[in-house]
Amino acid sequence: MRIALDAMGSDRAPAVEVEGAVGALLERTDLHVVLVGDRGLIEAELARHPAAPRDRVSVVHTTEVIQMGESPAQAVRRKQDSSIVVGTRLHKDGEVDAFVSAGSTGAVMAASLIILRPLSGVDRPAIGADLPSTSGRFLLLDMGANVDVKPQHLLQFAHLGHIYAQDLMGIASPRVGLLNIGEEEEKGNEQTVEAFQLLKGDPNLDFVGNIEGRDIIRGKCDVLVCDGFVGNVLLKFYESMSGFMSGFLRSAIQEQGVQLDLELLFRTLDYTRWGGAPLLGVNGVTIICHGGSPPIAIQNALRAAASCVESGMVEHIARRLNRLAEATPAQ
Amino acid sequence: MRIALDAMGSDRAPAVEVEGAVGALLERTDLHVVLVGDRGLIEAELARHPAAPRDRVSVVHTTEVIQMGESPAQAVRRKQDSSIVVGTRLHKDGEVDAFVSAGSTGAVMAASLIILRPLSGVDRPAIGADLPSTSGRFLLLDMGANVDVKPQHLLQFAHLGHIYAQDLMGIASPRVGLLNIGEEEEKGNEQTVEAFQLLKGDPNLDFVGNIEGRDIIRGKCDVLVCDGFVGNVLLKFYESMSGFMSGFLRSAIQEQGVQLDLELLFRTLDYTRWGGAPLLGVNGVTIICHGGSPPIAIQNALRAAASCVESGMVEHIARRLNRLAEATPAQ
Repeated sequence: MRIALDAMGSDRAPAVEVEGAVGALLERTDLHVVLVGDRGLIEAELARHPAAPRDRVSVVHTTEVIQMGESPAQAVRRKQDSSIVVGTRLHKDGEVDAFVSAGSTGAVMAASLIILRPLSGVDRPAIGADLPSTSGRFLLLDMGANVDVKPQHLLQFAHLGHIYAQDLMGIASPRVGLLNIGEEEEKGNEQTVEAFQLLKGDPNLDFVGNIEGRDIIRGKCDVLVCDGFVGNVLLKFYESMSGFMSGFLRSAIQEQGVQLDLELLFRTLDYTRWGGAPLLGVNGVTIICHGGSPPIAIQNALRAAASCVESGMVEHIARRLNRLAEATPAQ
Repeated sequence: MRIALDAMGSDRAPAVEVEGAVGALLERTDLHVVLVGDRGLIEAELARHPAAPRDRVSVVHTTEVIQMGESPAQAVRRKQDSSIVVGTRLHKDGEVDAFVSAGSTGAVMAASLIILRPLSGVDRPAIGADLPSTSGRFLLLDMGANVDVKPQHLLQFAHLGHIYAQDLMGIASPRVGLLNIGEEEEKGNEQTVEAFQLLKGDPNLDFVGNIEGRDIIRGKCDVLVCDGFVGNVLLKFYESMSGFMSGFLRSAIQEQGVQLDLELLFRTLDYTRWGGAPLLGVNGVTIICHGGSPPIAIQNALRAAASCVESGMVEHIARRLNRLAEATPAQ
């Protein structure tokens, strides 16, 4: 199993990426990681990890980096020697089985769309967030790839998430929910009211109905579908809550002079621990990590990428979405 | 100052309403509360509060209650003797200065729209949520009244919030933000991209730009504008987080056998403590409370209603939105 890792993506690149890669390599002996980025910087970091199994690490040197502020599609077209473009191309060419990056989400997505291409039957690939709930985990998608979507795109997201939940979360019959502002089927905006009917009418989904904001983390479904605008706002808010709460608690605890294992709190809330976010629907395995990822998140993302490859997820999505496209009259 | 309180609204009506009303009456000696609902039930509850200043409480008997599941507009039209309709009509007729209810949000809104009517210049009244941030408070609107809105409605929300922040939060020049998925002005969906330009181009607003999910509670603005779908999902999620976190903490604390003042946490997070949610843009003062409100939330809502009345908020909104309508070419 070979995975390309964008070594220039995170806020503290390439230190975080190299540390995460070493962790993953020590954890999984069948893994080979291709670090893509500035060779000098990468080698300097690698030198700090004497335990790194060097026979299972290679470096592909690149000279460009796509910055966060750049227009994704333009940057991908112009910066052909960027770590994101080169890493994605390695995947396209079959040199690696998956690509992981903590760089600009927009650029990673653009590169995947342009180079890997969407699978047949997928109009809009979506980014999933594998989040903790009070009773386990659930996949929230789309978390930001698509801000203006049609009801049939939400239906496609449901199928993308269905396969992910089967292949990666080990759930035989994933329960699919639609994020909405009320439980009743007539509730919502134009988009969700129509999507409800599409989801309800699809015999290949276990649709459990609308899920309200208050039930998001209560484990009522395994796959929660929403448009990328809502998903993005929600996810970023969720992230900030975790920091807000733990900061608040730290000071409260300090003032009151008590001992409390905050690690336990972080383990529950910190979604980076659960691995990066898969871009679902492209012809390949692309995992997008947070720019502020710690090494453990990179390590988990590499593990998640490996699981995606092993499970045959892309093939499963391709088959399912093709069937959906055949069953759906052209819109 | 006379305020009508729907005594039949909350999940534990009328006990919670009566207790909240008594608290507000003891706190403010110029207040008269008109309890609207089943007289027998209300009197029974009042009898449990010997400290209640009975000369400043009156009861208006009603025979109907609008349930949570009913279609709001239909219920308001059909149940003319419901506490929501009667309370709103008391306000319309000048018998009271404001109306507070913890009943069905949709029904309270429908009653306000049908009976009080929107102010001139207001296409869509919006519900605001006065929330704690890390550095104070901010108003999030719309939190659920309008799920399919146009950019010019977001502009109107900004002005509604501007007045609320001036009149009720004591902020002379409220900073207005637009909830979005990126800071740059070209980021967002069709709605927010266009709204950004309208907000930026309005000389009567201090527009601070896009606010991302992660910055919602960081105090970057005093008024945060979004459509009611996003606002509703976000607010309900926020509420559930508070419960989730405190439940989690309670068990963690119990297991680890430490003492920690969780009240402090609740004071910070529990938005009900900050009072009910004002319906902004109708010709009157309508405050909507959560169905699960504790008495303190009802008490705070009554206090908030009194402040709305005292500040002349409705008149200020009417003037400002009229000016906006005159300045804006018909769309």
